[in-house]
Amino acid sequence: MLNDQIIDADRARGAASLERLLAFTEADMGRVNTLILERVGSHVELVPEVARHLIEAGGKRLRPMLTVAAARLFGADTGHQINYAAAVEFMHTATLLHDDVVDGSDKRRGRPAARIVWGNPASVLVGDYLLGQAFMMMVETGDIEALGVLSRAAAVIAEGEVFQLSRTGDLSTSSVDYYAVIRAKTAALFEAATEVGAMAGGADAAGREALRTYGHELGVAFQLVDDVLDYGGASGRMGKNTGDDLREGKMTLPVILALENGDDAERVQIAGALGDAALGDAAVEAVIAVLKRLGALEATLEEAEGFAERAKAALGPLPGGGARDLLSDIADFCVSRAY
Amino acid sequence: MLNDQIIDADRARGAASLERLLAFTEADMGRVNTLILERVGSHVELVPEVARHLIEAGGKRLRPMLTVAAARLFGADTGHQINYAAAVEFMHTATLLHDDVVDGSDKRRGRPAARIVWGNPASVLVGDYLLGQAFMMMVETGDIEALGVLSRAAAVIAEGEVFQLSRTGDLSTSSVDYYAVIRAKTAALFEAATEVGAMAGGADAAGREALRTYGHELGVAFQLVDDVLDYGGASGRMGKNTGDDLREGKMTLPVILALENGDDAERVQIAGALGDAALGDAAVEAVIAVLKRLGALEATLEEAEGFAERAKAALGPLPGGGARDLLSDIADFCVSRAY
Repeated sequence: MLNDQIIDADRARGAASLERLLAFTEADMGRVNTLILERVGSHVELVPEVARHLIEAGGKRLRPMLTVAAARLFGADTGHQINYAAAVEFMHTATLLHDDVVDGSDKRRGRPAARIVWGNPASVLVGDYLLGQAFMMMVETGDIEALGVLSRAAAVIAEGEVFQLSRTGDLSTSSVDYYAVIRAKTAALFEAATEVGAMAGGADAAGREALRTYGHELGVAFQLVDDVLDYGGASGRMGKNTGDDLREGKMTLPVILALENGDDAERVQIAGALGDAALGDAAVEAVIAVLKRLGALEATLEEAEGFAERAKAALGPLPGGGARDLLSDIADFCVSRAY
Repeated sequence: MLNDQIIDADRARGAASLERLLAFTEADMGRVNTLILERVGSHVELVPEVARHLIEAGGKRLRPMLTVAAARLFGADTGHQINYAAAVEFMHTATLLHDDVVDGSDKRRGRPAARIVWGNPASVLVGDYLLGQAFMMMVETGDIEALGVLSRAAAVIAEGEVFQLSRTGDLSTSSVDYYAVIRAKTAALFEAATEVGAMAGGADAAGREALRTYGHELGVAFQLVDDVLDYGGASGRMGKNTGDDLREGKMTLPVILALENGDDAERVQIAGALGDAALGDAAVEAVIAVLKRLGALEATLEEAEGFAERAKAALGPLPGGGARDLLSDIADFCVSRAY
């Protein structure tokens, strides 16, 4: 009961900090959204159709918000953060389009995946188009160093996805492998998003490094939480996408920890469920019960909390005040999503 | 008989000009190949495995050769042409990996397509990795204008592929649509390859524009010839990949012209064959006979010759001599491939 009250308070604080981030970045995000809608256009009708399907389904736009918030931490207003934020969102959207093809996913953001509506070919090609447009928007700022940051992220993300693919269903995957995957496939874009934001704001080398580290640690925390949410979050409650990672054979930390700590029967049960695309909800619930019994969900969230703390600590050297505290609260919010 | 002798002479001259291009670009291409092999590496083993499968199968590397040859036309040796040439080859390889997924192709460069050996997911993701690496190599030159040229090409290529996809099997596709597709999916990369080559060589605005136009017209000619080769070339002789475009329902100029000029029976025959993945060789040969009877292959090659002439004319304002004449001969070679 007391525990529930603490959790509710955490969740309320998390939601409030997201609201504050939204309010803080509202003006810039208005410009970002205008740019996104402008650049998603093409004389080839299928391009905006596919891209808008995903973009208008409206994720949280957390990454571009982090870019513009990072820029506001520093004094200069180069306006570059608008282009970087839109480019980061395009890179993210391109990744989602390709991921759904790679994973054979049917749903995305509560709607049928683009590949279900328009097929795999259109999803691959529109993803490529968005990537090209992302680079064009970066080029327009004229800052070749920021381009270096973002192009490196593009290569690292793809490399992480390939590594994840090569480990799919591989029971020998270690937590070291897992961290290598999520640092690349997820944290690399968070890190680039906040680093180029700092650059757009005219940060000095220390400020840029602080935001780079903040973004990286936050990205790791974010992915750890996502991987717990895939098993119903801290409570292990079944929801609409619960068990997708299990059915796809994804070697995420909850599963890796359970395989490490379980007995033979538990290991056999998890191994049998991993990668079984036709796995029923009852079997998913049974695996979740094992994960909970072994403390695997809780241990993963504790790891996430550690990364969120490191993200906050990275902001330490920066001058205090509104923007810094907001980014700090966002790190808490990312973890509170799991409760 | 006389005709055959002329064709043999043309072919010999074409092959000789390719040999001369190889010799002329040999030193630079050695550096390009070293860079390619270096950058295809990754600690994720699957990445070089997939990428090398395609890269080592060794296409002609015509695009990167054009980049380094274009640079040699002008005085400066910035060395940038090495990075641009490798980046252009990576962009091309990424496109091939994705195209094979989009078309469901089984073969590429005489070997099983990467998607057959490692699956669609690895082909999509390694393509993305190569694109990211391509941008990183461009960034290293520090020339943001050249980055603009190449990132625009990346977006335009993808847009052209989406347009082609949306017209697949659509009998109402016009030659205007067709040219829009090939100017985007093929000519855009040739154009960017020669333009950034000129930039690396320190060309002035007029020189850059000349090479840009040369590359574009050459790219259109190249694709027209490719589309004739898919129906066995000028002679219409069956070869190992003959009829692939027909089976995939691709609306290329030979088919568009035949649908325009054929009678009802011929139109019905072509329409019935288009997009039939299981079409036998005899049915392909029957369609080729129709294309030849209607002069569709010949007319397409005449178009290609016109574009090759325009490519050569674009070089007119440049100082004459070895490099210019070589590029001029390469335009002839591109067309002579079809005979």
